Amino acid sequence: MSSSKTVRKLEVVSPVPADIDIANSVEPIHISEIAKDLKLSAQHYDLYGKYKAKVLLSVLDEIQGSGDGYYVVVGGITPTPLGEGKSTTTVGLCQALGAFLDKKVVTCVRQPSQGPTFGIKGGAAGGGYSQVIPMDEFNLHLTGDIHAITAANNLLAAAIDTRIFHENTQTDKALFNRLCPPNKEGKRSFSNIMFRRLEKLGIAKTNPEDLTSEEVTKFSRLDIDPNSITWRRVMDVNDRFLRKITIGQGPDEKGMVRETAFDISVASEIMAVLALTTSLADMRERLGKMVIGNSKAGDPITADDLGVGGALTVLMKDAINPTLMQTLEGTPVLVHAGPFANIAHGNSSIVADKIALKLVGAGGLVVTEAGFGADIGTEKFMNIKCRYSGLTPQCAVIVATIRALKMHGGGPQVVAGKPLDQAYLSENVTLVESGCVNLARHISNTKAYGANVVVAINVFSTDTEAELNAVKTAALDAGAFDAVICTHHAHGGRGAVDLGIAVQRACENVTEPLKFLYPLDINIKEKIEAIARSYGAKGVEYSDQAEKQIEMYTRQGFTNLPICMAKTQYSFSHDASKKGAPTGFVLPIRDVRASIGAGFIYPLVGTMSTMPGLPTRPCFYEIDIDTATGKVIGLS
Amino acid sequence: MSSSKTVRKLEVVSPVPADIDIANSVEPIHISEIAKDLKLSAQHYDLYGKYKAKVLLSVLDEIQGSGDGYYVVVGGITPTPLGEGKSTTTVGLCQALGAFLDKKVVTCVRQPSQGPTFGIKGGAAGGGYSQVIPMDEFNLHLTGDIHAITAANNLLAAAIDTRIFHENTQTDKALFNRLCPPNKEGKRSFSNIMFRRLEKLGIAKTNPEDLTSEEVTKFSRLDIDPNSITWRRVMDVNDRFLRKITIGQGPDEKGMVRETAFDISVASEIMAVLALTTSLADMRERLGKMVIGNSKAGDPITADDLGVGGALTVLMKDAINPTLMQTLEGTPVLVHAGPFANIAHGNSSIVADKIALKLVGAGGLVVTEAGFGADIGTEKFMNIKCRYSGLTPQCAVIVATIRALKMHGGGPQVVAGKPLDQAYLSENVTLVESGCVNLARHISNTKAYGANVVVAINVFSTDTEAELNAVKTAALDAGAFDAVICTHHAHGGRGAVDLGIAVQRACENVTEPLKFLYPLDINIKEKIEAIARSYGAKGVEYSDQAEKQIEMYTRQGFTNLPICMAKTQYSFSHDASKKGAPTGFVLPIRDVRASIGAGFIYPLVGTMSTMPGLPTRPCFYEIDIDTATGKVIGLS
Repeated sequence: MSSSKTVRKLEVVSPVPADIDIANSVEPIHISEIAKDLKLSAQHYDLYGKYKAKVLLSVLDEIQGSGDGYYVVVGGITPTPLGEGKSTTTVGLCQALGAFLDKKVVTCVRQPSQGPTFGIKGGAAGGGYSQVIPMDEFNLHLTGDIHAITAANNLLAAAIDTRIFHENTQTDKALFNRLCPPNKEGKRSFSNIMFRRLEKLGIAKTNPEDLTSEEVTKFSRLDIDPNSITWRRVMDVNDRFLRKITIGQGPDEKGMVRETAFDISVASEIMAVLALTTSLADMRERLGKMVIGNSKAGDPITADDLGVGGALTVLMKDAINPTLMQTLEGTPVLVHAGPFANIAHGNSSIVADKIALKLVGAGGLVVTEAGFGADIGTEKFMNIKCRYSGLTPQCAVIVATIRALKMHGGGPQVVAGKPLDQAYLSENVTLVESGCVNLARHISNTKAYGANVVVAINVFSTDTEAELNAVKTAALDAGAFDAVICTHHAHGGRGAVDLGIAVQRACENVTEPLKFLYPLDINIKEKIEAIARSYGAKGVEYSDQAEKQIEMYTRQGFTNLPICMAKTQYSFSHDASKKGAPTGFVLPIRDVRASIGAGFIYPLVGTMSTMPGLPTRPCFYEIDIDTATGKVIGLS
Repeated sequence: MSSSKTVRKLEVVSPVPADIDIANSVEPIHISEIAKDLKLSAQHYDLYGKYKAKVLLSVLDEIQGSGDGYYVVVGGITPTPLGEGKSTTTVGLCQALGAFLDKKVVTCVRQPSQGPTFGIKGGAAGGGYSQVIPMDEFNLHLTGDIHAITAANNLLAAAIDTRIFHENTQTDKALFNRLCPPNKEGKRSFSNIMFRRLEKLGIAKTNPEDLTSEEVTKFSRLDIDPNSITWRRVMDVNDRFLRKITIGQGPDEKGMVRETAFDISVASEIMAVLALTTSLADMRERLGKMVIGNSKAGDPITADDLGVGGALTVLMKDAINPTLMQTLEGTPVLVHAGPFANIAHGNSSIVADKIALKLVGAGGLVVTEAGFGADIGTEKFMNIKCRYSGLTPQCAVIVATIRALKMHGGGPQVVAGKPLDQAYLSENVTLVESGCVNLARHISNTKAYGANVVVAINVFSTDTEAELNAVKTAALDAGAFDAVICTHHAHGGRGAVDLGIAVQRACENVTEPLKFLYPLDINIKEKIEAIARSYGAKGVEYSDQAEKQIEMYTRQGFTNLPICMAKTQYSFSHDASKKGAPTGFVLPIRDVRASIGAGFIYPLVGTMSTMPGLPTRPCFYEIDIDTATGKVIGLS
């Protein structure tokens, strides 16, 4: 195995400069060079400027024969609101493997939402000397995938309300005549997509003129129950005033007002479809079978019933190709899909991981990140993503920080934008040791899937040796394969060489197959309860609404799907203030929804907002452009 | 002058196949070849796949010295709802000039909105053998400019409502402390953008601690009057249920509900800014000074007051670069910006035209399209676009069809989706002759700007020689420089060679300078009335709301701007049913709004919807993807 030709030597400065300054201090390598290292030829990708390229899915067909690399997932302990450097560790680990350990490696990460970029959190390209670059292109638009999702999601939404409107204002006959208009010769025909609905209705006719008047009604009238609509509009902006809205108040809409809401785009089912699909044909089917609500008779209505599944696929046809970028040290990165891990399934795409595993080949490594704590990100990686992909991870990394462990040990509240309490800035081994219960539960939960667990302790300058050693000890006691101190934020790949070695050893020494937390063929409640137990809950409590929905989805035949819990990332439980490893609580399920196209049932645990807001002084106050150079400034 | 190396010979079939079939029958040339023909080197553009490239604005600095080509604008007579082939003629003319007349030529067109593509109208790449290709990429996403506009528009919208919310729930002091939070050392500072507001308020201090409590209040409290907000959210989807909505109904928004609406994205002021800007620095200033409404004291509130002008520019930094594509015959096309001509100013961007004029150089030609009829598209081209660009067109083409002229002569109504009346399919010279009053007024109005007018008669297979001759005679009588029959739809560039020769002669023989319809230094009403007279109106009638707004904009000092009328495209008047060349009517101005960043006042003439709807059977029913080949099908 030969090291990447394009590896770039980093000049590291102390103290660590601002992220954007580090990102801008490095001239990125032309992306065609990065592609060349991966043995991708020009017909395998489309350039998007000089530093981004979309790798075409068709490459999978050509490299089908080659072996897969090792598959590593990076999760974390329960984080503070400041984040514990999971993306940074993912990137740093890969910089170590590619630039220092002579390994073929690809980093797989999610595309960040522009909501948080301009809101509170800032960008998501990693940090310090472990970043994906160009950082501004990574955080803004990228290659347009989230915009494509927004467009597709909202086309479907418009199709729903407009269809209800037209059905309410037309006779069956008029409706049918408009759905199947005569051509120049006066002949009516069905468009291809209509045969999907006809098949669903059991109508085996091909000529519109042959339908009985009863069949005309069944075919033309979806009869959507407005109160059953679960499909919402989306926007990739933190716009809290769209959390609950009334639409249809214009005079032309004839009083057909309806309460609904916007979600942030990354919460769209279409994002989940993109992340979980395995091919263009599979995506077409998934998009078509997305359920938007029910008919008044209680039957699920799909995108294909509305005639729009094909158009949605057309809107998503480029989005299915992952985007190739690079780390600060010139190792390759595939960016693809961007669901949040709290309100969605929180993992980058199956197709990016599959392409990456083939590109690195046997002996190489693919490092993929699962959002937030391992309770949600890694759990969904295993039980949803790996279930659909058929892939098995050999190693699961859990990122921990002294700061978060102290919080779990009983330290004062950590609030974004406010100075840290002194407890976090000076040595306190006891707090750290107490907090390790959180780490320990994440380790044992993750180990149960069969992968070897490596704990990555992401070092801050205020951490002490005694504190760090306490974590190592606790991690090994809890069953970790290894626990390693890393300084990739300050030193780039060089700071994660030990982690790289540990991860490689973990991959080579895995002994168990992938074991899921629950089988698919138990009922919805049993699956929810299996996950709740992994959180430490003693039971689950369902609202009436949740009971009703479970009953409905069961009746509709959607029981055999995996579960995607929408739960706070700040606690194993539903209560963000419960730190450490809480037990004995009852998990409240407020509502249950279904993403039939993506392929999961998602219970809402307590109150979960699917549309963030902006603070009084959002990040955008700092962001501007240097109009002389065209460079972005103030992005963090 | 040498002919383009990349010219492609078209194999023409009769009858003319479907647009997508023609588009798919041709293998596009790699866009880097098209760029090479224009003498663009690799650092001048960014590839977006194989057939699209963004030409970087910086190229303008490098070619500043070279001479400009001739500048040709293509407008039309008042159209039927089916469209009269203005885009097709624009493309066909360029194919003739580039592929048959050995001219350096660039076509400048607008990016189509995805709303109509999936709604009623279908795509906008031209038609028959005169198209921009790849047609699907042209109609879908392109290089993301409209998505960037949507994102920027909606970030500003979220900033407005959230700011009102935070101001309503915080004291002056708390607000100020959050806007200028202390850093790690406890020191507060202003971000750069805040100095724009401080300057506007006449506060010459640089340290937040030095502000008096009165200054703190003035600085922190924008005190936006919710009823004055003119900034709406946008979406590039035909979603009629968003024409009037109520937002802020979530429990966390504490009852701060407000009525508002979504417009289609191309109606966003940011689209107009993109179309009218001349440089990155100019765009930064325009975006910052966009007015979103007033303070309760009546002062205009801008994007920069909200701290977001820089972030909007960052979101738009790639969108400012025009997209290079190609025609069916391999001539270059610049696609950029896409405002509708009825509800917006209807012209592609100034920067694309400027780049194109330099790229073709002296003796070459740039053909740019102005939306809908010349009453709105060409009028705004002259009085708004040319006023801001400083460019002068030598020739104005007016596209006419026998079909539309018959309608203006008193023919039966033409309705999209319904079969044409027999009057349109058989010879009727009298109807055509009567209809030429419409053409004649467009000619004399356009001639008044000083350009030579060439009428392009876009031939349909049902047109007769007598009908076509009647139009030629009427056009020359009305003062046209020439009137030419063209068959580019059926024959490609070969069918527009005579038009190409006429346009070239018109350019070479122009004698008059550009004369505007109105000067800027008269008042708003005088300007509106000058335009109304060009429509044939005998007077203008203002609603109370319009009077109030004119009075307000006058008080705020926004009188010296050009006027952008929002008026139906189906008549010179406000009433779509008034065909021909109506006179004696009174033009009703229902409301007056302002796009201060873009730089115009826009009166709403009668009822104009800024959000289209979907029909019972939208175009999307036909659109799908062939999952085996990845090819789009059914796009029209």
